[in-house]
Amino acid sequence: MADLNVVTFRPDPGQYAWTFGGVEPLMKVRPGDIVELWTEDCFCGKVRSVEDLASEKIVFPFLNPQTGPFYVEGAEPGDTLALHFVSIEPARDWGVSTTFPLFGSLTSTLRTVTLQDPLPEVVWMYEVDRERGVARYQARSSDYSVELPLSPMHGTVGVAPPNLEARLSLVPDTHGGNMDTPEMRAGTTCFLGVNVDGALFSIGDGHYRQGQGETCGVAVEGAMDTVLIVDLVKRRTTPWPRLEDDEYIMSAGSSRPLEDAFRIAHSDLIAWMVEDFGLEKLDAYQLLTQISETPVANVCDPNYTITAKAPKRFLPGSDVYTGARARLKEMAATYSAEGPYRR
Amino acid sequence: MADLNVVTFRPDPGQYAWTFGGVEPLMKVRPGDIVELWTEDCFCGKVRSVEDLASEKIVFPFLNPQTGPFYVEGAEPGDTLALHFVSIEPARDWGVSTTFPLFGSLTSTLRTVTLQDPLPEVVWMYEVDRERGVARYQARSSDYSVELPLSPMHGTVGVAPPNLEARLSLVPDTHGGNMDTPEMRAGTTCFLGVNVDGALFSIGDGHYRQGQGETCGVAVEGAMDTVLIVDLVKRRTTPWPRLEDDEYIMSAGSSRPLEDAFRIAHSDLIAWMVEDFGLEKLDAYQLLTQISETPVANVCDPNYTITAKAPKRFLPGSDVYTGARARLKEMAATYSAEGPYRR
Amino acid sequence: MADLNVVTFRPDPGQYAWTFGGVEPLMKVRPGDIVELWTEDCFCGKVRSVEDLASEKIVFPFLNPQTGPFYVEGAEPGDTLALHFVSIEPARDWGVSTTFPLFGSLTSTLRTVTLQDPLPEVVWMYEVDRERGVARYQARSSDYSVELPLSPMHGTVGVAPPNLEARLSLVPDTHGGNMDTPEMRAGTTCFLGVNVDGALFSIGDGHYRQGQGETCGVAVEGAMDTVLIVDLVKRRTTPWPRLEDDEYIMSAGSSRPLEDAFRIAHSDLIAWMVEDFGLEKLDAYQLLTQISETPVANVCDPNYTITAKAPKRFLPGSDVYTGARARLKEMAATYSAEGPYRR
Amino acid sequence: MADLNVVTFRPDPGQYAWTFGGVEPLMKVRPGDIVELWTEDCFCGKVRSVEDLASEKIVFPFLNPQTGPFYVEGAEPGDTLALHFVSIEPARDWGVSTTFPLFGSLTSTLRTVTLQDPLPEVVWMYEVDRERGVARYQARSSDYSVELPLSPMHGTVGVAPPNLEARLSLVPDTHGGNMDTPEMRAGTTCFLGVNVDGALFSIGDGHYRQGQGETCGVAVEGAMDTVLIVDLVKRRTTPWPRLEDDEYIMSAGSSRPLEDAFRIAHSDLIAWMVEDFGLEKLDAYQLLTQISETPVANVCDPNYTITAKAPKRFLPGSDVYTGARARLKEMAATYSAEGPYRR
Repeated sequence: MADLNVVTFRPDPGQYAWTFGGVEPLMKVRPGDIVELWTEDCFCGKVRSVEDLASEKIVFPFLNPQTGPFYVEGAEPGDTLALHFVSIEPARDWGVSTTFPLFGSLTSTLRTVTLQDPLPEVVWMYEVDRERGVARYQARSSDYSVELPLSPMHGTVGVAPPNLEARLSLVPDTHGGNMDTPEMRAGTTCFLGVNVDGALFSIGDGHYRQGQGETCGVAVEGAMDTVLIVDLVKRRTTPWPRLEDDEYIMSAGSSRPLEDAFRIAHSDLIAWMVEDFGLEKLDAYQLLTQISETPVANVCDPNYTITAKAPKRFLPGSDVYTGARARLKEMAATYSAEGPYRR
Repeated sequence: MADLNVVTFRPDPGQYAWTFGGVEPLMKVRPGDIVELWTEDCFCGKVRSVEDLASEKIVFPFLNPQTGPFYVEGAEPGDTLALHFVSIEPARDWGVSTTFPLFGSLTSTLRTVTLQDPLPEVVWMYEVDRERGVARYQARSSDYSVELPLSPMHGTVGVAPPNLEARLSLVPDTHGGNMDTPEMRAGTTCFLGVNVDGALFSIGDGHYRQGQGETCGVAVEGAMDTVLIVDLVKRRTTPWPRLEDDEYIMSAGSSRPLEDAFRIAHSDLIAWMVEDFGLEKLDAYQLLTQISETPVANVCDPNYTITAKAPKRFLPGSDVYTGARARLKEMAATYSAEGPYRR
Repeated sequence: MADLNVVTFRPDPGQYAWTFGGVEPLMKVRPGDIVELWTEDCFCGKVRSVEDLASEKIVFPFLNPQTGPFYVEGAEPGDTLALHFVSIEPARDWGVSTTFPLFGSLTSTLRTVTLQDPLPEVVWMYEVDRERGVARYQARSSDYSVELPLSPMHGTVGVAPPNLEARLSLVPDTHGGNMDTPEMRAGTTCFLGVNVDGALFSIGDGHYRQGQGETCGVAVEGAMDTVLIVDLVKRRTTPWPRLEDDEYIMSAGSSRPLEDAFRIAHSDLIAWMVEDFGLEKLDAYQLLTQISETPVANVCDPNYTITAKAPKRFLPGSDVYTGARARLKEMAATYSAEGPYRR
Repeated sequence: MADLNVVTFRPDPGQYAWTFGGVEPLMKVRPGDIVELWTEDCFCGKVRSVEDLASEKIVFPFLNPQTGPFYVEGAEPGDTLALHFVSIEPARDWGVSTTFPLFGSLTSTLRTVTLQDPLPEVVWMYEVDRERGVARYQARSSDYSVELPLSPMHGTVGVAPPNLEARLSLVPDTHGGNMDTPEMRAGTTCFLGVNVDGALFSIGDGHYRQGQGETCGVAVEGAMDTVLIVDLVKRRTTPWPRLEDDEYIMSAGSSRPLEDAFRIAHSDLIAWMVEDFGLEKLDAYQLLTQISETPVANVCDPNYTITAKAPKRFLPGSDVYTGARARLKEMAATYSAEGPYRR
């Protein structure tokens, strides 16, 4: 295990980052490092019962705390950062969701303004059985209750944005951020374009589970123990967040209206099919039209997100991002075989 | 087999319907009838080689021909029509797709107007092997070729619209129409609100396969042999097209911008969860947030469509639409065991 | 006055049209005819006090009644119909407005669905002083009252739509319809592309006054006495409704989202500047960028409308639509000098 | 003139601000100060002939330079900053506009992505006659030329944004920024909510003239000599940029899609009518529906902007923002009578 450099970090509450950009790095890491992290839930762990209203417990904008940012040595604008998620595990025996006034896809908001009254603020607590891998939904107005399989993921993964900007951790955009795509799970490799020296990545917003679109705006939120491997692809730009797993290449487009998120995600996949798979642009457009899977990721954040997915089995052979994922999977296997390192 | 009433219909080219509404019915059917139909492809079968440009072969608005409309005896406004798809089978050994000028999600259109030149019009022909259940994609600008599994469906299924309107067969809306959702496959039951006496349903736009979103605007288009069973749920309204299969209840929302299609589909599923499954509205909102699957159906038609899906295993027990689907599945099994009837 | 052919028509309630397309013509008129019409208000005259709720008095879709359609002799697809508004005069001493449940720009709607309760349905009655040209706004929750100048216009002017469709009178689109632009006032010439033989134009939805955007969805609605002159420009297509007055050429784009209405209106003005004023496309784009006026017309109807306006004093000399407007203004002057003809 | 404190500032190129937020203040000013400023054009003065392509002369994100930020003594979160524009005068004898690749309302963009080629990049130079108050448009593809009246304004006026963010100067949002509304002219008072100590306001992006919507994305851009007076309304929040002139109160909403900008602007005007004019919410909704004027400001920036305007003559009497504007107008008159101070 001499070859694996394992870094462990658990932030104090005073160390959370609330934005991407505009924050000093907490720590330096190197390409190849395995990083064991803990992330707090989006409500800073302050909503712990159905009596705890997020609107009272949280002072805006201090929600969705991020663990980071981390400075990646050698990362420069024009490079691509690869983050490979080895494991993402619930760190608590409970999760929480809520309606939040003027937030979510089926309510008026601060942007889609109406003169109507907001929906009531209601909290749902989920009991989590980590052994059995389930979270229990309990209706508030009836006895109905059902176990839902855990499907842990990070809603928020990103780097410092371009153009001298600092963006709230609630915002998804070209730098990643709060994309809320269920594809950000263990086993996935996430590629992000580097905009500033050191890339300055952070992660947070653990979801024990969410539906596609995160309809009410709040998943089954929970603290996470997460292990990821950091890698760097030099001199390769990545315009929008891209993901890869064993079956798919994926691109996450974020914008408004939602059709623009769709356009971004699909045109970026086409660009990727041209760059790494050697297809001509219109041939890629045609092939993608017949093979894409296109789940909505969020319709509640400042930008909406759609993830476009192309099954790799239908694409010409390729060495995606110079084979980064193969290397990362091998390291992950070594780590997992010898682990756990945490604690 | 005395209990099954089987009706067969194959339209002549002069019998196609080009709109929902505004067309006289071709034939009367009764609830319980099994209907064997043939549908032409969206280009009226006129695009048969890469030399055939749809823009030259088709005179607008004479595309996307529908087989129908059928008058369902006893159907009145306020009822719900159920169409259960027993089988949907490619009727030819080839399918076709194309870029079409100013149509598709990654081009300017007649609505999202720009001053740029249109994309080139390029045709892709697909060889279909019905035995093996595959269609072959062949790139136009390289030798790349790949087999894609067939996944036959109808892009267009609908009834006469409400409000005295007649809508082009390209349009999806409350009456169904050109939703282009891959969920409209064999085994699915489709529920449509009845707006006029007889309901006047038609179907068409067979797709041998399509990705989610139908990105370039044109799937692998092809003629179909389709068997469906007609049923009627009296005195039950259905505001938006709903679908049910063995795993999911689903709602197809169609509007612009795309987030409105998302809102419609999810709020309609919530309404359904309240009506048929006994959940309180906000409890349903919460549960759906954690369990929904939300593929985009189309981002190219006059309205965009999103299909929201809720897995039935997470819902309270229910007798959806008075158990229509169970009855229909039983009939389908009887028919399939004794068939084929066609020809 | 031998040269003026004056036609007068006042519909019985049973003669209203509720759609564009799908309706038999009431009467034939010829190019050059002066037509004196009466139009009912959008609520069929049934909302006459603050106690009268439109949601109770009106059975959907029987609102926004149109006077028409009129068959214009000689009008064929590919021609342009010109309607020149000689006068538009309030026909009553009162007007009415209301909030209507789930209709308007600052409420959720049947498309922009939320789970919130609708706004209350409240009616405002306006006293109209036709002599002094004012309508009196009276607050419902306080004593505040103010006189607003009358500015009569027609919200709805259109022809039968293309593509075999019939559209509800609430819908604005390429055929005109419910554009709700305040520019449709006396002195304006409206150009509409002809889609079917006879063009089949109708008008309705008189507004004694409205703000730009018709925010709550309902203007100061009222019956109208209107005089217009019919003209025909043969073999000249018009893709979107165009207007001309003494100062401006204008185009009314209708779509969703609102930016698409903006794109349509401006690109259509650019096309017009190329066709009739001889400017090159990008030169027209540049000039329009610096001179356009762009009021929002409606953000409440099934399509939203924006009117783009270019001041004619900044454009090269032109004989717009073969000088139709000059001829029509001359006829209007003759008619007005010799009139009134009505009654 | 003892009572007027006049501050003059002309930035060196190294002093420009490229963002709102994330920048140290250049200078402190006090409420009541009269500030004489110079602003560079959006291309940093580098596009000076039709041969100068902005895409070659400018390195993103270094465009749209701002003069500022200024720290206003005593300004704290929860206050409102008032900026009263005394004069805005072209500082050069030429202005410039251009198409910019993938920017503007009638082209695909980096958000509304298509696979089409970008429009050509073409530059138009405008000769400015400051004496006569006109700029000359000269077509590039023909001899057509026309004088357009100058109508100087600032496209960009803003403060540091809320939520720890820093936003590029191209972005309009709650903090103001690149709204591109022609209403930001001499004589207008602009109210902006204060988000950070000192408010940190900047201005820039002078337009010698623009149409409503800034269709191609670039107005007649030019350097400006601008005089404004700084004022502070303590303990009064302002959620969105508000403007006031002699005739109107106005609100500038910025978002996507464009209907959300419309919703924001109108609901904010209604909130203002409730707060300062004593109208009940639905009464204000009704009155605004009949009196609003609603020009589009921009359909090209990262958020689109609409300005909603309510004529003050139709509103109940009011002391808007504790009469700030009356005081500011008096100071402006004194300054103008005794000036010019500049140089």
